[in-house]
Amino acid sequence: MSFIATPQSLHFPDALALQSGASIRDYHLAFETYGTLNADRSNAVLVCHALNASHHVAGVYAGQAKSEGWWDNMIGPGKPVDTDRFFVIGVNNLGSCFGSTGPMHLNPDTGQVYGADFPVVTVEDWVNAQARLLDRLGIRQLAAVLGGSLGGMQALSWTLQYPDRMRHAVVVASAPNLTAENIAFNEVARRAIVTDPDFHGGHFYQHSVIPKRGLRIARMIGHITYLSDDVMNEKFGRSLRAPALPDGSAAPEGDPAALPRDYQYSTQDIEFQIESYLRYQGDKFSEYFDANTYLLITRALDYFDPARTHGGNLTRALAPVQAKFLLISFTTDWRFSPQRSREIVKALLDNRRDVSYAEIDAPHGHDAFLLDDARYMNVMRSYFDSVAKERA
Amino acid sequence: MSFIATPQSLHFPDALALQSGASIRDYHLAFETYGTLNADRSNAVLVCHALNASHHVAGVYAGQAKSEGWWDNMIGPGKPVDTDRFFVIGVNNLGSCFGSTGPMHLNPDTGQVYGADFPVVTVEDWVNAQARLLDRLGIRQLAAVLGGSLGGMQALSWTLQYPDRMRHAVVVASAPNLTAENIAFNEVARRAIVTDPDFHGGHFYQHSVIPKRGLRIARMIGHITYLSDDVMNEKFGRSLRAPALPDGSAAPEGDPAALPRDYQYSTQDIEFQIESYLRYQGDKFSEYFDANTYLLITRALDYFDPARTHGGNLTRALAPVQAKFLLISFTTDWRFSPQRSREIVKALLDNRRDVSYAEIDAPHGHDAFLLDDARYMNVMRSYFDSVAKERA
Repeated sequence: MSFIATPQSLHFPDALALQSGASIRDYHLAFETYGTLNADRSNAVLVCHALNASHHVAGVYAGQAKSEGWWDNMIGPGKPVDTDRFFVIGVNNLGSCFGSTGPMHLNPDTGQVYGADFPVVTVEDWVNAQARLLDRLGIRQLAAVLGGSLGGMQALSWTLQYPDRMRHAVVVASAPNLTAENIAFNEVARRAIVTDPDFHGGHFYQHSVIPKRGLRIARMIGHITYLSDDVMNEKFGRSLRAPALPDGSAAPEGDPAALPRDYQYSTQDIEFQIESYLRYQGDKFSEYFDANTYLLITRALDYFDPARTHGGNLTRALAPVQAKFLLISFTTDWRFSPQRSREIVKALLDNRRDVSYAEIDAPHGHDAFLLDDARYMNVMRSYFDSVAKERA
Repeated sequence: MSFIATPQSLHFPDALALQSGASIRDYHLAFETYGTLNADRSNAVLVCHALNASHHVAGVYAGQAKSEGWWDNMIGPGKPVDTDRFFVIGVNNLGSCFGSTGPMHLNPDTGQVYGADFPVVTVEDWVNAQARLLDRLGIRQLAAVLGGSLGGMQALSWTLQYPDRMRHAVVVASAPNLTAENIAFNEVARRAIVTDPDFHGGHFYQHSVIPKRGLRIARMIGHITYLSDDVMNEKFGRSLRAPALPDGSAAPEGDPAALPRDYQYSTQDIEFQIESYLRYQGDKFSEYFDANTYLLITRALDYFDPARTHGGNLTRALAPVQAKFLLISFTTDWRFSPQRSREIVKALLDNRRDVSYAEIDAPHGHDAFLLDDARYMNVMRSYFDSVAKERA
């Protein structure tokens, strides 16, 4: 049983200067809030989202079954981030396709849909936009800024861009920048989208088509990197697709009329369950995700690198940090491995900052940050419990 | 200085029964031989190739600079597999695009180009075709069958299909089957090819187009999996593309007029060197590799699983083996990790077979099997030295 969430939106008429030198004006940010802001406005927690997520972090929408927010297991009344104690804010980033202004909206300068002309946005730009949203909500200082994966990068960036605007930063399954391999996977996904003939240089909206081929490939690649080799073997292994009935239709589980499956010897048909799973994920994604948004968000991932302007020295880069940190990583996460979290931990300790770090032994790869794992949930619960108590 | 290699071809008129139930007739196999077959025909070594390789294993072609065979560092006079002592045979597999009969050739049953109708071939089928080639060359028993990656699977399969036709099997950087993650990467690559509008269901030849978009994506994915995360970070890291001159052209190294490179803030242009590298590899590959061949070879990889007909029990599957084995794996190979080689070692030891195993600490990932590494070369040299001596 989840509570009812209600999406909101705020209009920002003034231009926001972007890291690229461009700017964006007259934009909207979609957001949701859960819980109650206390009298001294000190119990706010901002949740930053990752690639395929939105401001709908927790709760369900009225009348919509199965509309739980993407971190509904983590955030809500009595949950690790307890909305009976905290005022939680979920915000959709600029350039997204889930409610905030993005490439599918009108460019006020031209009256045309942005398409590929939507300005390139960075983690730093998102944080600046989120800060403006907090200004409008009357929140000077957050109890905590919280995020996983790309969301963790935003939380880290918050502590550098606005060091005195949060007391805690919680960075889950994240990294101080992408490795060459991370960038490589992003680049293949982008090339699949950009070279899809239906992409039309990013202006596919006016051709009334969607580069679904490219989006499917991008999502399939993404899924492989979210899961661990172990969990893929456990979930799918080399299992063949479900057996078929003599007429070729899928047999219900345990149906004695089902034919034993042997190889079909086909290069294009589905043989293995893992293929079926990936195709399904790709198809689903291509129905709702925007191609330009995919390019923008993966590029924001590529660009994030706070040590870059400090000669690659992360310790120097993190000197401005004032917040206390909780970092969490997962042993089987090969996309953002524990080693990457430890780099952040070390740089914070070098700066004598207050850091807690948990490396969770979980089988699920990068996806673990979204899943229920008792140890992970306990670490989060206990940390946020202490955050709540220090205000009292 | 390499010796001159000369490609040869043999025609096989009789139908070869394939594992799928189909058959293929009137096909050619391209091959090369190096060294001299001795009087008792006991010094032959068969080399099986991996995905992107051919019968041109060693030497150079007359008048063609930089035409070294793909394992020229390993095979030749005085090299680890010494052609002064061994008669080495390289053979191109059925379905390839490098000389043996493949999807771009005429189907004798229809008079049309095979295209997508080329029969699905398996590792076992390739081994059967190779055995016929040995028959024609008058070779009853090999001194050794040798291969890396998919080539290692063929070497392993040889010891099961023709247990008395080799004295040694050398299996490098290979596995007893693909994991779910391996299949997943193959499937994404195949989907990129098959959904390229220029694929035309595999009959693109008659449309005079090539599904280059799909081939590029497939190759980029492949390259990521061939390299280790470490070597990618070392070779490319987060380096930006080479600096440009004010007119936008690439600056020669060290040119003082070169502009310092900052982010260009573009989602489609190349920012990072790793992107440039991958795009180049993809472009090059799409110029010479056949799309149907890519599907066939990745499918042969997916299907290989000698334990499958033994309830997944590799020990039982390897009971017929008579050959002595050398297995080699590389620590940073995450495509075919050392653990996979150890599964084969264990199954052979369970059967009380003669096994040598070397796990080479090398940084280069799966690609290491093609590269010079002193320890790797020494292991191979010393093993083949003992193979040569046991005949004496």
